[in-house]
Amino acid sequence: MPVTRSFPRTMNAVFLEEPGGNLIVRQVATPVPGPSEVLVKMSAAPVNPSDLARLRNAHRDHDLATYIPGIEGSGVVIAAGKGLLSHLWLGNRVACSSHYPTSGTWAEYMVTLAGSCFPLGRNVTDEQGSMSLVNPLTALAFFGIVKEGGHKALINNAAASALGRMIELLGKKSGIPVINLVRSSKQLESLKSMGSVYVLNTSDPAFQEEFSDLCKRLQATILFDSVCSSELISMTDALPTGSSVIIYGNLSGAETILVNPRSLIDRDIRISGFFLGSKSKEDGLVKNIINLIKAGRLMRSDLKIKIRDRFPLEDAQKAVDIYITDMSAGKVLLVPGH
Amino acid sequence: MPVTRSFPRTMNAVFLEEPGGNLIVRQVATPVPGPSEVLVKMSAAPVNPSDLARLRNAHRDHDLATYIPGIEGSGVVIAAGKGLLSHLWLGNRVACSSHYPTSGTWAEYMVTLAGSCFPLGRNVTDEQGSMSLVNPLTALAFFGIVKEGGHKALINNAAASALGRMIELLGKKSGIPVINLVRSSKQLESLKSMGSVYVLNTSDPAFQEEFSDLCKRLQATILFDSVCSSELISMTDALPTGSSVIIYGNLSGAETILVNPRSLIDRDIRISGFFLGSKSKEDGLVKNIINLIKAGRLMRSDLKIKIRDRFPLEDAQKAVDIYITDMSAGKVLLVPGH
Repeated sequence: MPVTRSFPRTMNAVFLEEPGGNLIVRQVATPVPGPSEVLVKMSAAPVNPSDLARLRNAHRDHDLATYIPGIEGSGVVIAAGKGLLSHLWLGNRVACSSHYPTSGTWAEYMVTLAGSCFPLGRNVTDEQGSMSLVNPLTALAFFGIVKEGGHKALINNAAASALGRMIELLGKKSGIPVINLVRSSKQLESLKSMGSVYVLNTSDPAFQEEFSDLCKRLQATILFDSVCSSELISMTDALPTGSSVIIYGNLSGAETILVNPRSLIDRDIRISGFFLGSKSKEDGLVKNIINLIKAGRLMRSDLKIKIRDRFPLEDAQKAVDIYITDMSAGKVLLVPGH
Repeated sequence: MPVTRSFPRTMNAVFLEEPGGNLIVRQVATPVPGPSEVLVKMSAAPVNPSDLARLRNAHRDHDLATYIPGIEGSGVVIAAGKGLLSHLWLGNRVACSSHYPTSGTWAEYMVTLAGSCFPLGRNVTDEQGSMSLVNPLTALAFFGIVKEGGHKALINNAAASALGRMIELLGKKSGIPVINLVRSSKQLESLKSMGSVYVLNTSDPAFQEEFSDLCKRLQATILFDSVCSSELISMTDALPTGSSVIIYGNLSGAETILVNPRSLIDRDIRISGFFLGSKSKEDGLVKNIINLIKAGRLMRSDLKIKIRDRFPLEDAQKAVDIYITDMSAGKVLLVPGH
């Protein structure tokens, strides 16, 4: 039996009603932590682009009757299964990520691995702490790829997002220039005012030429894209010979992206994908914990992520609907009992 | 002055009349070899898919007034510039590849680097020898990529081509299974009768399922494609997680290929290109010469490439037109004075 504070036998959690359907709340049994696991009473959980991607595929990957979405969040560890780490976290405020498709962060309680949690510092709020994992770990992983590939500079599409801001920050820390791509002059001005040096507006008529010149000048040979827009092909064609394109999201919801075979054959452009989940599995536990610590530091020290709105679990669908109207406008949080 | 046998001051050579236009013959000055170069009196030169790709891009990459197409061929070295190798080849029958855009193999004479030639064995005809370089070097390079990437088996689209036969042969020699993809039941029967074990017809209704199963069973995690057809996306989606797609040609002439972003993100599919020219530059001279020797052996020992037809230089356009009606039906050669 797990060491435990008291918790109710049932809880509210978000479910997907049907493939492509609405998010609804259902009452289900509160899960009980097994060995190496903890039970987290959730305080807050963001809607991330990666959540949206998982929701789109959920009916293929999971049984919708038991699938609870939500990748990351924050809360208090109120029960611990057998194990050193799980007992260490007991009673602590933690940032946590979901490990089982049957127990996500969009719920009143979540069971996850103790190794998927880390304690929040006193000066980090529940809300900021709930966004401690996905973005910082993704940004850190990107810079790992950049350094491994010997790239002198990188390009980040969707630069106005919270992740975009974190990439810019890491770029400054590591001395690797970041070319920030945004979609409007308002976003451009906003990023410039926050101190970004290289910002281009993809809807500017001169974009293609400016982009190509800047990539050449900075030797920016890697593009991170989470949009999959129709502009991707012309961006790819403007990259220097030998460049890499890393697709890590699909905000546009495009079924397909277009690639120019000439870019592949004549100019040695390479296209691949990035998914934090696969990366974590590849890295193994030790490297993950090191990354979690780095991510935690990044979170503590520097960046406050802008929060646009908060919703109770019952309004999960509304939260998603509002989030996707403008993902650069700030994060939307699910706060149980809000 | 180069050491030389006599040769005429002018020669016939093939030119591209205008962007996307016809191939025509013009009389121009016979080129004179400089240091490390040789002058080859051409015997035969094939039309390769890579020639067609270069012709499509020629108006962007070269001055059409001076651009002579033709990547490989065979002939006799009749003049040599300063240098050990060039003098070694003087008087020899050689296989040769073009080094300068202003001097291709589709001409009566070609100037090229001595290092881009190697002597033909007695038992190799001019015609077979004219196809000694591009296909064997490409096939060898593919197996280099396969071994480096630790792939257990490979998939070759356009398997009925001369290159396809060479890949199958190298697969047998190196114990790496090759899944041969063809476009008709006739090609399927033909390949099976020649001893190919794994042959699938992409126009078969059950193709997708059979292909997916076979890839899984053989752990075929790399696909070489020179077609860029609309089927490429479903083939890519059927590949095992972590597979690579290498585009090395564009027989369909497609402006774009379609890629499923989910395959990239969720299943770690990687897409890149291959161009023998870049590979040779990367490898450097010594590795190239070793590869030429290996290619020569491959040529001598095993495979006779089927020749469909021969044309004089004046009929270069006709030769191309006939070749593209069915690239699996055999090679088409340009034979000066035929």
